[in-house]
Amino acid sequence: MSTQPLQMTTADHLRQALDGRWAHIREASREQLADPRFLDDPNLPLDEARALALAQMQELAKTDWPATGFSADHGGTGDPGGAVTGIEMMAFANLSLMVKAGVQWGLFGGAVENLGTARHHEKYIRPLIDLELLGCFAMTEIGHGSDVQALETTATYDTATGEIVVHSPTPSATKDYIGGAALHARMAAVFAQLITDGESHGVHCVLVPIRDEDGNDLPGVRTEDDGLKGGLRGVDNGRITFDNVRVPRENLLNKYGDIDVDGVYTSPIDHLGRRFFTMLGTLIRGRVSVAGSAGSATRLALEIAVRYATQRRQFDVPDGQEVLIMDYLAHQRRLLPLIARSYALGFAQNQLVSDMHDLQVAEDPDRHAQRELEGRAAGIKAATTWHATRAIQEAREACGGAGYMAENRLTTLKADTDVFTTFEGDNTVLTQLVAKELLTAYADEVSDFGAVGWLRFVAETITGTLRERSAVSTFIQSLLDSSDEKVEDADLAQSSTQLRLLEFRADHLLETAARRLRGAAKNPDNDLDDDGEVDDFEAFNSVQDHILAAGAAHIDRVVLESFLEAIDACADEDTAALLADVCTLFTLSTIEADKAWFMEHRMLSVERAKAVTRHLNELCRTLRPHALTLVEGFGIPQVLLNSAMLDGPGTDAVRLAAD
Amino acid sequence: MSTQPLQMTTADHLRQALDGRWAHIREASREQLADPRFLDDPNLPLDEARALALAQMQELAKTDWPATGFSADHGGTGDPGGAVTGIEMMAFANLSLMVKAGVQWGLFGGAVENLGTARHHEKYIRPLIDLELLGCFAMTEIGHGSDVQALETTATYDTATGEIVVHSPTPSATKDYIGGAALHARMAAVFAQLITDGESHGVHCVLVPIRDEDGNDLPGVRTEDDGLKGGLRGVDNGRITFDNVRVPRENLLNKYGDIDVDGVYTSPIDHLGRRFFTMLGTLIRGRVSVAGSAGSATRLALEIAVRYATQRRQFDVPDGQEVLIMDYLAHQRRLLPLIARSYALGFAQNQLVSDMHDLQVAEDPDRHAQRELEGRAAGIKAATTWHATRAIQEAREACGGAGYMAENRLTTLKADTDVFTTFEGDNTVLTQLVAKELLTAYADEVSDFGAVGWLRFVAETITGTLRERSAVSTFIQSLLDSSDEKVEDADLAQSSTQLRLLEFRADHLLETAARRLRGAAKNPDNDLDDDGEVDDFEAFNSVQDHILAAGAAHIDRVVLESFLEAIDACADEDTAALLADVCTLFTLSTIEADKAWFMEHRMLSVERAKAVTRHLNELCRTLRPHALTLVEGFGIPQVLLNSAMLDGPGTDAVRLAAD
Repeated sequence: MSTQPLQMTTADHLRQALDGRWAHIREASREQLADPRFLDDPNLPLDEARALALAQMQELAKTDWPATGFSADHGGTGDPGGAVTGIEMMAFANLSLMVKAGVQWGLFGGAVENLGTARHHEKYIRPLIDLELLGCFAMTEIGHGSDVQALETTATYDTATGEIVVHSPTPSATKDYIGGAALHARMAAVFAQLITDGESHGVHCVLVPIRDEDGNDLPGVRTEDDGLKGGLRGVDNGRITFDNVRVPRENLLNKYGDIDVDGVYTSPIDHLGRRFFTMLGTLIRGRVSVAGSAGSATRLALEIAVRYATQRRQFDVPDGQEVLIMDYLAHQRRLLPLIARSYALGFAQNQLVSDMHDLQVAEDPDRHAQRELEGRAAGIKAATTWHATRAIQEAREACGGAGYMAENRLTTLKADTDVFTTFEGDNTVLTQLVAKELLTAYADEVSDFGAVGWLRFVAETITGTLRERSAVSTFIQSLLDSSDEKVEDADLAQSSTQLRLLEFRADHLLETAARRLRGAAKNPDNDLDDDGEVDDFEAFNSVQDHILAAGAAHIDRVVLESFLEAIDACADEDTAALLADVCTLFTLSTIEADKAWFMEHRMLSVERAKAVTRHLNELCRTLRPHALTLVEGFGIPQVLLNSAMLDGPGTDAVRLAAD
Repeated sequence: MSTQPLQMTTADHLRQALDGRWAHIREASREQLADPRFLDDPNLPLDEARALALAQMQELAKTDWPATGFSADHGGTGDPGGAVTGIEMMAFANLSLMVKAGVQWGLFGGAVENLGTARHHEKYIRPLIDLELLGCFAMTEIGHGSDVQALETTATYDTATGEIVVHSPTPSATKDYIGGAALHARMAAVFAQLITDGESHGVHCVLVPIRDEDGNDLPGVRTEDDGLKGGLRGVDNGRITFDNVRVPRENLLNKYGDIDVDGVYTSPIDHLGRRFFTMLGTLIRGRVSVAGSAGSATRLALEIAVRYATQRRQFDVPDGQEVLIMDYLAHQRRLLPLIARSYALGFAQNQLVSDMHDLQVAEDPDRHAQRELEGRAAGIKAATTWHATRAIQEAREACGGAGYMAENRLTTLKADTDVFTTFEGDNTVLTQLVAKELLTAYADEVSDFGAVGWLRFVAETITGTLRERSAVSTFIQSLLDSSDEKVEDADLAQSSTQLRLLEFRADHLLETAARRLRGAAKNPDNDLDDDGEVDDFEAFNSVQDHILAAGAAHIDRVVLESFLEAIDACADEDTAALLADVCTLFTLSTIEADKAWFMEHRMLSVERAKAVTRHLNELCRTLRPHALTLVEGFGIPQVLLNSAMLDGPGTDAVRLAAD
């Protein structure tokens, strides 16, 4: 393993801060993955790109990492945080590898681990760690992606034979976009409505073999290749249709619902909706991994763009040398706030992984904390993947024509991460979920309402103070309490002021959303349905933009809290001071993007609003000399940058070499 | 040709409004291009994709269209507006074809047509129209893309032999990203510093044969393949390096600068910078074509997304059917304002093409009008291509996982148009150019200053009122004059109020930018250079964000004016009323995006600011029933939508068929 350098640079300190609790996993990954064998090659034909990702996964199977995600009792090493961190690091090399590994060990393996019982663990965990068993995760259907409770696939118990019959009753019940389904997977974890004796018990997961050893579809199974996608060429996504496929009763992953030989259904959770969301909740790791990987891809793109901008010159100054493009204010304004947001989201991700780990290894995890974590994972996944889409796009544009060449990496990063805003939960639906969880105070009773149904709950139950905030740390509370100055007058450069502004926005949006929902539900102007009741959909829909704003504002607040705690934990004084500037850049650019809201709610006067923009420009000037240090702090092995233009012709490296 | 339907629908009227002056070209294109032969196939290997685009271009060469761009004297039909409109229509089929055709007939052909003289026209125009001569446009170098005046390639006249020696003196002088250079082009229009007798006359264009009939590089020429790009797989971009390649003196395109046999240089334009920008100005068609094509690709993506959203359902309403995703407010908010902006930019594009056409066919075009047009083309190119990047991304996300499948078109549209924000002028540089032209009142003297140099001009010359606005139509002026109510109190639903708000912002930003530039140049706090002078770069840089905002605000204003004039010209009352709502959606969403600015400048009170958002939500509800009509109005032949998911499983079409 690596040793600490004797004299740590600021970049080293930054990396240490971002590495966080699983620094040892990151260091090991850096050594293992910093190898051109793990890179992607966008020039490969589709079949070879898929073969490459599989071969890379097989290389990974030789390391200790795949076992980290599984309990020691089942053949693993029981380190969920390490498992997720490893996925995050993989994203620096090849995003197709990351997705393929995430499907195998995270989603498929996670379903067996978390929804199965001893009989499944004994039989499948070790083989799936070792890739003797390749699996896929067959949840999404053509007809239903976001609304998973409405899946159409059925799993019907046949008492006569003791088998479960898995079936796709309609064209839209076809499983689609399933990673591994086109080619490599031999078994599918199939989510389907479990039916015994004509009664449905909601969505459960059943293991269904889909291919023989030669790769042929098994009887009753029809797989199809999704073909070319916008990116992720190494992932063999496909469709699966089931025509009354029979599997033994034992293939039901039966931790949260079981059938005995006579077809009698039992479950430790009576409430159908709560059962379903408990099952979904155990699969949180997928969402956390996608957020982490999106973070990695974004840092990679920003490092490439900053390195290019500190080598590339354009336009003379009068009587002088051409100007480095990083020295233009406009270039600083487009890249530096994105770097700041990457730091912010990185710290929030670390906190999320750490909390997830602690809950997943706990003997008796707190139910309320779990729901809070699920909401936070949803929100950080949405925030980080939208940030990836925006920041990688900006990085591409900031590198001009060179940025459009595949050999310079940015277009592949953009294409590969593009679906991250969609898979593991559509970002709009997830942002809504964040607000829903807050509005309903994580109440179990509302977990099975659709996107509209919970309106009634909100409308009927919330009267006074909305919720008790869970788990604000002492440090954050002390910051909030540290000033009795009115926030409208306090110093914008102070973290306590920034925190109070983001807290105010989040609280206010949530409270007013609740009030509007109650009002809308009771507004006689709303359309009435056939029973003369207020049309809940109309009532919900009239407030949807407000609900989404509340969800997003909550996440900004949580992210800022993580950032401030990370600065507090940073031992090196200079690094902490630099991070404080980066944090201010993050917060003020967040405020600037929603400046009108703060003005509308009298939190910013006209003069202070203008000062925000001035302050941002000054911060860019202040941080410009640290631009390279900040991207070095991302801790990306240089061989993984894999961008031909860096140090190429037209950059300072070549010009200086020619001198 | 098509005949007008007896009973025109609203969609027909919308299409007529958007079709504008070159409706006949659009109709002809619809008939010619609505053929699967002209579609792209993202599954083809790179070499076949390139061969396909070439074959499609050869099909086009059989039509009348390629001749439209060239003067009747040279073998064309003299219809520049028709030429550009044809390119715009091609973008519905295959963006690689559009770029390849644009390079051949627009850029290469345009250089010969506009920079050459009779000897070139006679020899090359007809062959290049007929594709007997395939050319490329070799301007950009590895080291210089935005700053074309600083190109390093040299074209040195050798009096001894009467030849011009074309040479790449450094690695960064290599021509790069040149469409056609990798494979198909036989001749290059090479931009190089013209040198006679040791003296440079600035950048000129020289025709250099680069390949023989068998496709081999000619002696002294080295071409390389740029390989895979982010998109545009059908375009064979490449690099060209010249090692003292000799061509006859006659190969200099000599309209704006000539050398006689003794090497004596003459030009009708003495001023070096003015000469260069006059030459560049004649090439405006490329920029206009890119804007038009970006507009087409965006409309295509939005039509696909809206059609999908009106077929796709997700989440139950209580006791009811699942909800069409187009019925969610959040979905309306993400798509409808983009449709409105597409209409707005479409009308502005039509105005631009029309004005360009009139100037290009005029005997003695007005110099001031030309500069205004160049600035407008730059601004509309930037606005439309940024809109494309954002809107196509949003359309992809709005279609979820299906949107990520290549067979559904959106990812290809995104990838192919991605470089549009870069080529034919980087959007940031172009937006700056818009402001520069306004600030310097199109003064010829400042045309050769770099991005910084014009600061001195601005600082030294502008004292009072900034500029006289050119060419505000009587109609717009009457709208501006139609109310003496203060704009802060006037009705936001009125077009006159909206116009006055956007005019105020544009004027105010420009005036204050000028004031700040003057102030910055005279501010003793600014860094001094070695001569004790204010550092012009620092002065410029401190105001760069303000300058860019002024450029963008000017374009918004120009776009709104075009929209209002198009509504005024619309004869059908219902259609005009619908367009008025669309226009309000465009303007209010533009204002909402910059709402803080209007509040900071006391143009919107807190209450009115909140009303803007409410108004937008109401407009979405009003326009929802017209969503399909609005995309039908884009006039895209349905065979060119080429999106497998439309009417597929999981949509209403299949559900209803199954009923």
